Amino acid sequence: MPLPEKQLIARIRRTLMDNRRTTTVLKGIGDDCAVLRLPASHEALVTTDFSLEGIHFRREWHPAEVVGHRCLARGLSDIAAMGGEPIAAFLSLALPAGLDQRWIDAFIKGFNRLAKKHGVQLAGGDTAQSPAGVLADIMVLGSVPRANAILRSGARVGDDIYVTGKLGIGIAALDRLFAGEDARTVLRDKSARKHFYPEPRVTIGKYLREHRLASAMIDISDGLSTDLAHLCEESAVSAWVAEEAIPVAPGATLPQALHGGDEYELIFTAPASKHKKIPNTIAGAPITWIGTVTKSEPVSPARPKPSARSAAPRLSANNHRVWLVNNERGRSELKPQGWEHFRSGGSIAD
Amino acid sequence: MPLPEKQLIARIRRTLMDNRRTTTVLKGIGDDCAVLRLPASHEALVTTDFSLEGIHFRREWHPAEVVGHRCLARGLSDIAAMGGEPIAAFLSLALPAGLDQRWIDAFIKGFNRLAKKHGVQLAGGDTAQSPAGVLADIMVLGSVPRANAILRSGARVGDDIYVTGKLGIGIAALDRLFAGEDARTVLRDKSARKHFYPEPRVTIGKYLREHRLASAMIDISDGLSTDLAHLCEESAVSAWVAEEAIPVAPGATLPQALHGGDEYELIFTAPASKHKKIPNTIAGAPITWIGTVTKSEPVSPARPKPSARSAAPRLSANNHRVWLVNNERGRSELKPQGWEHFRSGGSIAD
Repeated sequence: MPLPEKQLIARIRRTLMDNRRTTTVLKGIGDDCAVLRLPASHEALVTTDFSLEGIHFRREWHPAEVVGHRCLARGLSDIAAMGGEPIAAFLSLALPAGLDQRWIDAFIKGFNRLAKKHGVQLAGGDTAQSPAGVLADIMVLGSVPRANAILRSGARVGDDIYVTGKLGIGIAALDRLFAGEDARTVLRDKSARKHFYPEPRVTIGKYLREHRLASAMIDISDGLSTDLAHLCEESAVSAWVAEEAIPVAPGATLPQALHGGDEYELIFTAPASKHKKIPNTIAGAPITWIGTVTKSEPVSPARPKPSARSAAPRLSANNHRVWLVNNERGRSELKPQGWEHFRSGGSIAD
Repeated sequence: MPLPEKQLIARIRRTLMDNRRTTTVLKGIGDDCAVLRLPASHEALVTTDFSLEGIHFRREWHPAEVVGHRCLARGLSDIAAMGGEPIAAFLSLALPAGLDQRWIDAFIKGFNRLAKKHGVQLAGGDTAQSPAGVLADIMVLGSVPRANAILRSGARVGDDIYVTGKLGIGIAALDRLFAGEDARTVLRDKSARKHFYPEPRVTIGKYLREHRLASAMIDISDGLSTDLAHLCEESAVSAWVAEEAIPVAPGATLPQALHGGDEYELIFTAPASKHKKIPNTIAGAPITWIGTVTKSEPVSPARPKPSARSAAPRLSANNHRVWLVNNERGRSELKPQGWEHFRSGGSIAD
């Protein structure tokens, strides 16, 4: 039964917002701003991510509980990728008129369960009537000890490249949905569960930061090929990836593992000297070596035309490349082909 | 000419995102999270506000520059209401396919001009294709010296009540637009300018905090009657407001001044002992005394029915009331009638 707008909003405030005063969240909802205190000598981490119906999810494929879970997971995964710890979340949620209250209740259930698991307090946000579909924007505030955030830009030539978990499940499940398979059947399939309830790797990110193992890190939101290219570009390096080493998830193919987005896994680099200190698993997830950071080759400038002889050689962004190495076929360039499924556009900051 | 999606996103990143490294914004765009350092001994302030086409603005009424300005103004006004200083903004922006690049450029112009004025760096956000219309969500991070945030809950019996600026313009302009007046005519009318380019009262909020003048504060986003009621409820007090004292803006009526939302003015309370220290104007805006904080009267329990004699008297939230006092007609209850114009629903945290 659809609730009148006002009651719906009141219901969300009551069931979703957590107004406890803690040592960190000094003032949650009920004021113009939330007031928060960061741990001493910590820096703040901020990430925002849309979850828009028809773009990031479909209501006919993704149950409300899944939408709530994935909405928060997107933000937590970005905190994980910095080696940070999440503190509080802020949810802007616009709902279409006439939305069933059971949908909201299930969204809240999915959101709250993940928030509780990670000790994240929902400390504010905004609500509105939506002009079209369910529109959510999640902001997660986290923290990290001063100067300890693991950036994308820290990879150095000679570093090893690792990935958490197994790859390709997200897109494999989506491909089944796009192919017309019944969404409930896919949802019930254990091997596809990770698509619906991804687990942001916060514990792994924190472990790597605390043990000072990672030189650079990024989460896989647009696909290994795209996100490793981002890391290389920010670090001004290239990378060799061993095709045989890619941890392809059961039920997925190599191309899905290489290009599938929405993985919520982490790619990180570490100096070769740390290799023995990298555990085989962290928090239950396998950690797999997949390649090596290499020096970027300068792009050979195009043969100068007589008229352009004085022009300085232009350094293309493409000189930071990712190469896929196959024992038989040799190396080929792994071009960013991150599969952007629902997602058109892209992140300003992922 | 509409731009392909990818180019549009790239354009936004290039022109809107400010990737300077400052002492506060250590890492802006280009990583999984922004990394920020708060001033020493400061607490963080966080606010988020939707600006949704058809709900908070109409593209046929509000030029893109206005939409960009108002989007950021909403967040800055919340920071002002805490006595805080804005540090960085994060913008999630979803755009419909085929949107003209000139619209984006004008949005950016309006946004950037206000950001520059307040020294706010756009440090991140998200972009996506929109399923319907322009969808923006602004998050502003600010800071305030530890334990110095001016909350809604600090008003005490006997405090004076003040308001900044003159009220009623926002709704007066909207009423003209709803009545069918040409939007360009209204936009050119100087008296209506404040509706299109509201000035968040950041300087005033900071002044009141630095001089320790305000005991409680809130910004007028839903109308004086509604927002003063919020302040009373959070402070567990009532209020008397002198009808004759309300600073009605030229071109607006008393009801518009009492109930019009989207004002970006501040209501604050101050102990009577500070009355002489409250300036007549701060940063060019008049500061007007409008009333007094009074004790909340206990709600008289309904005459007990014989069958319900043992029921405890129920304290309604309504015992925190706002009274409008007229020299001739005496007092009448000023019920919250905040005019929510486009806005259906309401804020979780305004």
